[in-house]
Amino acid sequence: MSLLVVGTVAFDQIETPFGKSDKILGGAATFIGLASSMLDVRTGLVSVIGGDFPQEHLDLLTDKGIDISGIEKIEEGKTFFWAGRYHNDMNSRDTLATELNVLENFNPVVPAEWKKPEVLMLGNLHPLVQKAVLEQLEERPKLVILDTMNFWMDLTWDELMDVLKNVDVLTINDEEARQMSKEYSLVKASKKIMELGPKTLIIKKGEHGALLFQDKNVFFAPALPLEDVFDPTGAGDTFAGGFSGYLAKTRNYSFDNMKRAIIYGSALASFTVEKFGTDRIAELTEEELNDRLEVFKSLTNFDIELD
Amino acid sequence: MSLLVVGTVAFDQIETPFGKSDKILGGAATFIGLASSMLDVRTGLVSVIGGDFPQEHLDLLTDKGIDISGIEKIEEGKTFFWAGRYHNDMNSRDTLATELNVLENFNPVVPAEWKKPEVLMLGNLHPLVQKAVLEQLEERPKLVILDTMNFWMDLTWDELMDVLKNVDVLTINDEEARQMSKEYSLVKASKKIMELGPKTLIIKKGEHGALLFQDKNVFFAPALPLEDVFDPTGAGDTFAGGFSGYLAKTRNYSFDNMKRAIIYGSALASFTVEKFGTDRIAELTEEELNDRLEVFKSLTNFDIELD
Repeated sequence: MSLLVVGTVAFDQIETPFGKSDKILGGAATFIGLASSMLDVRTGLVSVIGGDFPQEHLDLLTDKGIDISGIEKIEEGKTFFWAGRYHNDMNSRDTLATELNVLENFNPVVPAEWKKPEVLMLGNLHPLVQKAVLEQLEERPKLVILDTMNFWMDLTWDELMDVLKNVDVLTINDEEARQMSKEYSLVKASKKIMELGPKTLIIKKGEHGALLFQDKNVFFAPALPLEDVFDPTGAGDTFAGGFSGYLAKTRNYSFDNMKRAIIYGSALASFTVEKFGTDRIAELTEEELNDRLEVFKSLTNFDIELD
Repeated sequence: MSLLVVGTVAFDQIETPFGKSDKILGGAATFIGLASSMLDVRTGLVSVIGGDFPQEHLDLLTDKGIDISGIEKIEEGKTFFWAGRYHNDMNSRDTLATELNVLENFNPVVPAEWKKPEVLMLGNLHPLVQKAVLEQLEERPKLVILDTMNFWMDLTWDELMDVLKNVDVLTINDEEARQMSKEYSLVKASKKIMELGPKTLIIKKGEHGALLFQDKNVFFAPALPLEDVFDPTGAGDTFAGGFSGYLAKTRNYSFDNMKRAIIYGSALASFTVEKFGTDRIAELTEEELNDRLEVFKSLTNFDIELD
């Protein structure tokens, strides 16, 4: 049971109505790895950082049991940096700064002992980087999951379509699903997108939960209604980490098990938004996670006996 | 097991991206009654219509077993009329016409045999009209449910707060919950609203489902993901009719039974949006409803065993 993750390991600086963070640990691979580490899955990250990246952040990952041998450090370079400000409703944000830095010429290298992962999670990156990782593997993983965003649809549509053909599960948000399919209805969108390669589609709707589509099956996982969303940054990646980590751990790729995986992803994401950046997911205990899974049960499960 | 409903019986004229309707049967009480009639609940409507209201519409209600003795007909008056146009996303609409007509001086009269209903559903109307119905009853119903909207919050806040004190369940949409509580977070909003009288709150989120709050309990019912929403008019009232009708039928007001009631409401509402106005709910069969309840089960239920 192993999960290979490619994605950013980065600095984030975040403003929300609740306050402003320093330059803190962020990045898709970071959140994905921290989430999957909660599920006792052997997790390896493939990423790139600059000489400015502090050892304590790497130690945090290592302490969680995450294999960072695939994180390349370019001493003379600077780490990818993103700064953003969330609006009062926490559902929209302005990007204040995006400094690609070492990400600009990222050539991912999969370590020798990571060439046969059970599950591959391709975090939101240039589709050619995602493809390069897939091509370095010695065996096709049992499951390949890809996350992407509108930026890559706008700039690298053909490359994205090419890599999508080799993907089992695509995760995108509702607006991106509409953009990709040119359909407003998410049901219609899902059908068109599943013709592009992925047999399974997850549409993330933020505070409105997530939809899982496969063939004619649909499953809906709500987001936990919260008193306050303190910082949404990383919620989608935490969700992806919980989903991919649970599947890598259980090695069961049935629709019913994907339902469980999506609930694990939702439960983990509900912690990430409680504090800035990785603060909450990094301190999370197994007991807290189990308690929250019970909350999700009572939030959605009902019994109706029909004749 | 009986449900008394007060609300509009009206004409609607609707434009959607899919087409334009004639002046068709509409009104909150109409949809509520049609929904509850699917659950074999004795249902009585209190409303007012004009001399222009066709007998065939009344026959439709009577054929469904709905008691229309509380619908006053003012021969020289005209029936309440609403016209609206939905935008392409079907989530927002422009009101093209609102003609109150006989509704302007509506004095609801509860028929003698309807003064001890099991459940009372106060449809969206002036809070003084809602209060007048409550005051005519000889016994307090086991459950009083009230629906309202931003219009009454803007114009008749004090009267609304007064009637709310005697209500068990309030149903409003998410924007109205925020307006009523002055809180953006729906969890915070629910706490403030439940201090105004109703011990139970339902927040309707349209295509994003509905939340049920009571004490510290929360339950979430999704809306069914549909290929097309043909006409959303009446969906909220159908939902309220399913919810109130199910509770009147089962006479069980526990939180667990309210969960079932909200799923019945969601399932019924998912039919209403498939055609113009009442067309779909009026032709609905019990078998179709049961099939859709099964769909809701598979849409949300999952099993996770925790230690």
